[in-house]
Formats: sequence, C-alpha cells, structure tokens
Amino acid sequence: MLGTLNLMTQEGIRNAAGRVKSGKAYSLSVPLEAEGPQWPPRQKLWRITQFWNDLSNWGGSCDAVIMHSHSGTHIDALSHFWYNGKMYNGFDGAEHVTSYGATRHSIDNVPFIIGRGVLLDIAGWKWVEHLGLGEPVAADDLDQCAKAQNIKVQSGDIILLRTGWMRVFAQDRALFDRGEPGIDESTLPWLKDHDVIAIGADNHAVEVIENIPPTDLPIHRYAIRDLGMYLMENFYLEEIAADKAYESLVVIAPLSLTAGAGSPINPIAIT
Amino acid sequence: MLGTLNLMTQEGIRNAAGRVKSGKAYSLSVPLEAEGPQWPPRQKLWRITQFWNDLSNWGGSCDAVIMHSHSGTHIDALSHFWYNGKMYNGFDGAEHVTSYGATRHSIDNVPFIIGRGVLLDIAGWKWVEHLGLGEPVAADDLDQCAKAQNIKVQSGDIILLRTGWMRVFAQDRALFDRGEPGIDESTLPWLKDHDVIAIGADNHAVEVIENIPPTDLPIHRYAIRDLGMYLMENFYLEEIAADKAYESLVVIAPLSLTAGAGSPINPIAIT
Amino acid sequence: MLGTLNLMTQEGIRNAAGRVKSGKAYSLSVPLEAEGPQWPPRQKLWRITQFWNDLSNWGGSCDAVIMHSHSGTHIDALSHFWYNGKMYNGFDGAEHVTSYGATRHSIDNVPFIIGRGVLLDIAGWKWVEHLGLGEPVAADDLDQCAKAQNIKVQSGDIILLRTGWMRVFAQDRALFDRGEPGIDESTLPWLKDHDVIAIGADNHAVEVIENIPPTDLPIHRYAIRDLGMYLMENFYLEEIAADKAYESLVVIAPLSLTAGAGSPINPIAIT
Amino acid sequence: MLGTLNLMTQEGIRNAAGRVKSGKAYSLSVPLEAEGPQWPPRQKLWRITQFWNDLSNWGGSCDAVIMHSHSGTHIDALSHFWYNGKMYNGFDGAEHVTSYGATRHSIDNVPFIIGRGVLLDIAGWKWVEHLGLGEPVAADDLDQCAKAQNIKVQSGDIILLRTGWMRVFAQDRALFDRGEPGIDESTLPWLKDHDVIAIGADNHAVEVIENIPPTDLPIHRYAIRDLGMYLMENFYLEEIAADKAYESLVVIAPLSLTAGAGSPINPIAIT
Repeated sequence: MLGTLNLMTQEGIRNAAGRVKSGKAYSLSVPLEAEGPQWPPRQKLWRITQFWNDLSNWGGSCDAVIMHSHSGTHIDALSHFWYNGKMYNGFDGAEHVTSYGATRHSIDNVPFIIGRGVLLDIAGWKWVEHLGLGEPVAADDLDQCAKAQNIKVQSGDIILLRTGWMRVFAQDRALFDRGEPGIDESTLPWLKDHDVIAIGADNHAVEVIENIPPTDLPIHRYAIRDLGMYLMENFYLEEIAADKAYESLVVIAPLSLTAGAGSPINPIAIT
Repeated sequence: MLGTLNLMTQEGIRNAAGRVKSGKAYSLSVPLEAEGPQWPPRQKLWRITQFWNDLSNWGGSCDAVIMHSHSGTHIDALSHFWYNGKMYNGFDGAEHVTSYGATRHSIDNVPFIIGRGVLLDIAGWKWVEHLGLGEPVAADDLDQCAKAQNIKVQSGDIILLRTGWMRVFAQDRALFDRGEPGIDESTLPWLKDHDVIAIGADNHAVEVIENIPPTDLPIHRYAIRDLGMYLMENFYLEEIAADKAYESLVVIAPLSLTAGAGSPINPIAIT
Repeated sequence: MLGTLNLMTQEGIRNAAGRVKSGKAYSLSVPLEAEGPQWPPRQKLWRITQFWNDLSNWGGSCDAVIMHSHSGTHIDALSHFWYNGKMYNGFDGAEHVTSYGATRHSIDNVPFIIGRGVLLDIAGWKWVEHLGLGEPVAADDLDQCAKAQNIKVQSGDIILLRTGWMRVFAQDRALFDRGEPGIDESTLPWLKDHDVIAIGADNHAVEVIENIPPTDLPIHRYAIRDLGMYLMENFYLEEIAADKAYESLVVIAPLSLTAGAGSPINPIAIT
Repeated sequence: MLGTLNLMTQEGIRNAAGRVKSGKAYSLSVPLEAEGPQWPPRQKLWRITQFWNDLSNWGGSCDAVIMHSHSGTHIDALSHFWYNGKMYNGFDGAEHVTSYGATRHSIDNVPFIIGRGVLLDIAGWKWVEHLGLGEPVAADDLDQCAKAQNIKVQSGDIILLRTGWMRVFAQDRALFDRGEPGIDESTLPWLKDHDVIAIGADNHAVEVIENIPPTDLPIHRYAIRDLGMYLMENFYLEEIAADKAYESLVVIAPLSLTAGAGSPINPIAIT
C-alpha cells in the first residue's frame, strides 16, 4: 500500500535532521489561490471568507475553502494514476476508485514524507534562466547535475527538481500552461535504481510535456503505478536554489484527506 | 504583522533539529473529513472525487475538496479573532476583513512554524483518561506538569497541550461537542511570560469551555489579538503521549491560502 | 408550516393563467455569477467547469457549482429569519436550525409559488430613474401606485416591487452595496391586510436600508417570522416595467434543496 | 445559438396557458440533495448551512450550496455534449469550452422554456410498474402511447416521458444506477419531425442505457449536437401521471448560471 514510503526509515530521518546546519528554513509552496498554477483543464481553486464583526463585542473571520486536490503545490496519492485497469500493487482501478473516493492508495495513507532533500538545480547547472517548453531532462543530466553540485543521490532521498519553469508562470502564463520542461523516459531506470521516495518539481507534472493535454504521461504511469513513487508538483524552488542549499531536511505533510487522491502541500526544507 | 513568529529564530530551529534522537516521527492530525471534529455550528468539511477510468488506456482520479479553513486539525491566523473593533497590532477589523478575505494577518503570512515542541500531557500527569467537560487547566498546572515531565518551557517553544479530550470524540461525540477542558484565564500571563510561538491542543478551541457556544473566549481574545500568538486545534496527541515524547522537532506547514483566516494542517513532530 | 402558501389556491392559479393575453414571457433573474448582486458580507457565488474533450470521439462539459443560497435573484425560506428565539409558528430556532440545515420551514416545503403577479413600479410612478439610497416606500405609496396603474392588489397576489435600484448595480456598485430604497415599517399592516403570498423586489432585501449592515430588518422580522410571507430579492424588473406589464401569471420554482434556507430562482412572468 | 428555442412562440405560450383548466400545479423535481439521483460517476451535490442564532436579538440561517450542474432534476445546455470536435451550429468545442466555462451555448442563453407539456406515460400505457433495465422506447411506442392517450404531439411541445424508472430509485438504488430504459435510436427522426422544444424523462439520461458508463449516447449526440434540442433528466412524474394529466402548461426556469453547461431545475406543470 505504501510504495516508496517503505524506503523512509528512522535512520534516514535521523540522518537528515543531523544535517541541519544553519536552521534556515524554506517554504517551497506557491500561493494557493484561484489564479495560482494548476493543470490548465482543471477546476480552479477558490477561497471565500465569511466574516462576522463586532457582534457581542467580538470580531472574527473564517473561510469556506473550495479547491482541487491537485492544484497549486501538491502531492499525488498513488490512487491518482494508473493504466491497463490496474493501480499500483495490482488493485483494480474501477473497483477501488469511484465518485466517493479511493479505497486503496488514498492520500491519508501518507502521514508524512521526511528525509534528506536533494535539490537538483538543472537550470542553474545549465546556466539558464529556465529550461524551454518541451525540453527534456535525461537521466544523464540528473547525474551530471548531481556531480556538479558535489552531491550523491541515495536511497530514501526526496528529489527537488528545478527547471526554472515556475519563473515562466509569473512572466508568461500562456506559455506556462502550454507545456513544460521535465524529466523524460530515460529517467525511468534512474528513478528505480536510486530508490528515491518522492520527486517534487517546479512545473505542472514533473515530466516533460510538449503540449497540454499530452497524449501520454510515461513518468506518471511508471513512477506512480509501477514504482509506487510519490510525484509532487508546482514547487517554488527559487529561494532555496539562490542559496545553493542542495541538501536539506525536507518535511512533506499532506492533509489527511480521507479517501483523497492527493493534497495541496506546503513543503518545508530546513538547512 | 507576524506576532509570535518573531520569536522563531534560526538558532531555535537549529537547536530543535539537534534534539532529534531516534528519527521517529508523528503526524498529529486527525482524519480530515466531513465527520471529523470541528466547531459544532460550523460548515462541515467535505470531499468529492471525480474519476476517469480507462480512457485512452489510462485511469486516474482527482478530487474537488470543499472544507472549512477551521475544521479538523487546523491553525488560526491572526485575522481569525479580534475584539473592540481592533485586530492584533491595532488594525481595524471592519476595514481589513471582508467577504473577500483578510488584508492583514492572513494565514499566508505564516510560511511555517518550526521549533522545539513541548508536550504537556496534563491528562497523563493527572493520571486520568481525559480531563472533564469544563475542567480548567491553570497556569500552575502547566508548571507542575512541566516539572513532573522534567522539562522547562523556553522562548520559541511550541506547546502541545494534551487534555485527552480527543478520546471523547471517538467515545461520545455529543459530549465532545458540548464543551471541553482547556486552559483558563490564569494562563494568560503564563502565555505572555513564556514567549511560546504557538499552542496546539487536542480540543476544539485550546481553552476551557463549559458550553458551546460560549459567552466569551478569553484565550482567543488575549492570545490572538493581544499577543499575536498562534492557536492550533484538534491535535491528535495520543501516540506521541504514549511514547512520552515530551520534546520534539515540530514542523507546522499551513497551506499558503491567500487572504485566508486559517488553514487545516498536518503537524509533524520528529523525536 | 406553509405560511402564506395557504393563500395559493387552484382558483387563484386558474384565474392568473386566464389573464395571459399575448404569451410574451419574462425572466426576472439577473445573471447568477460571482460578481452578481448579493448581500455585501456574503460568500460569493462561484462556478467552475470541468470539461472533457474528444475522448472516444465525444466532447462535453459539466459544472461544479458553488453558490450561496441567498445570492443573486433568490427566495427566502421561512427558516431564513427569526427573532426572540422563535421562528414562524413558534418553533424554536436553536432547536430546528443547525449547521446541518433546517428541520422546519426549509425551502423544500415550497414546491412552487404561482399566482397573479402585480408589478408596482414605484420608480415609474414617481417618474424617476430610481429611488434614492435609504428612500422609503410607504404603504400609501403602494396604494397610490396601484391606483395610478389601475390595478387592485388581491389575496393570493405576488407583488413585484420596482424601485429602479437594480439600475444602480450596473452604474455604481459601491452605492448599490451601501444600502437601498425599499418598503418601510408603515407597510407592515398593508402586507398583512392584502394577503399577498410573496413580494419580490429589485434590491438586496426588499426593505429600505440606510446602511449595510443595518441595525434592524423590521420587514424581515415581521413578514417572515410573524406573517410567514415569502420575501424574494434582486429581481430584474426593467424589461417588464418598460412594457408596463402590470399584471401577469408569475411562476416561482425554487430548487428543492433539502433543509435549505432559501434558493436562487429564475422567476417567470407570462403576460 | 438557441436551437429548438426558436420553436417557442408567443402563440404557443398563449395557447398552452389557455389550456389550464383546474389550476392544479405540479412540481416535477426530485429532492435536490447529496443522496438524490445523479449520474453515478459524478460529483455529489451537497448543502451546508451556516447559521447564526439570537445575536442582537435576531436569528437566521443561510446556506452555502455546492452542487453539480447536472445532478438531480436538471436541464442540459447545448454546450453539454458534442462530437467530432464540433458543437451545435458548428462551433469548435475545444475553442469554446474550457475550465472557465462555455462561451457558446451556455445555459444562460435559455431564459425559460414554456409551452404545452405532453406527458407520454409509457409505463402506464404498457400497464407496468416501470420499464426494465435497458428496455428501449421506440418511435412507434411514442406514437402508440400518444394515440392511446388521445393526444397529438405538435411543434413547440415539451415532452414529459415517463418510464417509471424513478420508482426504482426508491426501491433499488443499485439497479437504478446500473442503466435505464429510455428512447432508442429509432426516435431520432421522430424527434426531428415533431419539432419538440425539449424532452424531460424520469431517468438519468433520457435515452436507453444498458450499462453505465455507456459506450455511446446517440440521443445526446443527435438531439443536443445535431438538433439543438434540450434534454432534461431525473423528472418526478409519478403524481402527474397518477392524475392522467397528459396536457399541461409547462414552465422550465433554469438558473441563469453564466457560462454554465446546465442547471438544476424545478419544472412546473399547471393543468
């Protein structure tokens, strides 16, 4: 049921915490709001506030929040994607996912993801503002970038993949929504061999997409359905990359949404 | 604007991370769902899944989520509560909070709250299953409990207050919704003197309430409006208390809801 | 339970249908959308579309709709308003209205309101574009306007009250939201004596309000709580008034929202 | 843009009103609620009430409503369905329908549908409780039923098709959700030749479906996309059929949801 969460050990968490040096922490979330980044065809996040005011001497406010579980910065549950009728671990998709939610692999099976975060700043390593629309990141790029950053990806790591694409969101929303740079199919064995728990990227879908909607999502198929790995999207990595904080203690705390297919998150990195 | 967040320092975070011993981590969230704990008069959290199935060979699911920002395990923004027309730092409530949200003290001003978590297990210290309806926890109780646990509350700490009341949620929902045990007005100077950043409790509202709806919420008035301190509610503290994990690295990562008055959270404690 | 619905008879409906002359019909609804007219402190209506496109050769769309039951053109259920703790017919408000909805007087008790519609075009009769902010319409105004229009209000009628205020919505939203012209307390005996079933007006709240939020809503108190009469708001009466169609067959068809406190409506007048 | 609304004339409305005899009226809506009838894979309708109680001497309640535009008793806009990339009148689906809504053929183009309602009580004519799962209603059945009822379908009519299937909703929800009886492809020329404005049925989708989800929806394709005709679903026809009220004045008043693909409705029939 847990997929790559099985790679998360107390030892790994302890070691990751032991690497904290400065105590400087980063929120890797974009603003969660109606006009924030999200998969273009999707329902838009929205927030409404009801308020009361100086009734019986008090004032206050609280909100009704309507959102998509996969908009803004978010994590995909293993129930988010499958193919050929079968989910991760061979569960039948039609049986376990209905309009009432998922009875297998829902996000409330993920209490947290904690481990060493490894920032692979591909855009920084390539000395570009951001990668281009449809520009692939290959397995070899991941290796070379890690080497250039003098870091070695290990079992239990959480990869933070920076393509710079989130800069495009602010500069040219139409371009941002047309597709994205991201990892390509050559990374499939890399993902398996490196035993990472999760990968979060500063784009819609982690993987390279030339046109949205795409005709295939091979990384989603392979990582979620075949490996049981956690994909995380729309990360804000500008500040942590500016600090060249390639190593950190990363804490991912999904909302415990019963039967949900994912959750918005505010990922935290502590260096 | 930040209230007690000013007490959060890199040194405090570094020291808290340095206390991690075993690497065992805890999710302090209850399930976030329609029937979860929440302030009785409030709108109920809900989740709906839309799914697609074996279209073009893929399957998948995602959710539309409708929720109250203050249901289940959650944090109050400083815009959540005020009195005499004035919010924390003297801002005018009617001017800054409308049906469009808060223009001061909204939850997106809180990127994270990280620090040493100090569990004060009042129910454990009193050797009871749980405190009773309307049973107050006084400043002296906090001090004695800390002493019994051999721990000293310091500036920058995050208090985890356990009354055992969340056990009542599972056993007797009607009783749970009638009121709660919690801290009383004698703790107001204590809260100020100890410079804690935030306090999270295993009940609706942190403070003692004999009847819901109450005629006053003095802790809300004082902590939020006067001190700028963060209140957090409906924590699940059973597992961490069973382990007597009185000290931990606590990471609170509110959703970055633009203009929101609070956020559901999944608080993480690492020991 | 039904209040003034008891005044709706088959004879009244038959007679109203018998008055149809031209067959010209009117929708008296404003656009129902986030930026449409609504009580300023209220949660905003919102609509999201999910779409699918050319999957297996089909395309299509459907919507998730989030709205306030009392935004845009709408009807108030008798559970919408009460005072001194008692609802219409003496039911206890705290007992019968909770966050789960109303167990008395909810909108699903109103299958329809059908009868003769009588347009009282106060702005037209006064030869003004629209009445002013806080300008009262007194019982005597109603009588004189009816007389000038050569129409007599009868038991079972549905009053369409035109102040012209909806013109202000398009011209000056801030002014529209500050208050409104409407009927004043002198109309309370008039409402009772004329045995009308319902009254719909082209403003927020039917009644005159100098400042929103108001300190009292006497028409709501009296009409809803004491008379069991149906108030309807934000009607679009420009077209029907331009045609001087003072008499019509009016059909009000609230959504059958179980336990709801009101419903958006699209009122129809046939002349 | 209007499709069969072009068949709605003042003369037709006047004549329909002229047929009102008794003044007895019917609501043809089922309860609109989370557990009401709806297309099984769809998001569930929900309603939440916020209430206030005896504050400053008043009490009251209003609701936040979350619903699917196509759940419960509802009408399909012409933007709801298309094929081969083209909507009614040749508009491009991908261009005109996005996650922001429809820019062609949305429901706010339908101010009302008014005309003579013709109840074709197929189940009554066949002397059965209800038609069976997957049982087709052919063009010849429509003709014979009309003849048996001594009624002639004319241009501008609104067909109320009763299969009795709504009885199954109460008796056996699982069966109701598995498929339905309804009109088959032989009715396609019948629909075109009779120039009806709209057809409402007591099932999910008007047309016969053996298994949900179906592999094709030929009536949706032809009626909506090719004819521009309005389909309406989940009608409650038990009471009007029991009265053998085959002819009525029918008033359909969709909510004026800007850019929406449909609307819940409370259809009214007056006899």
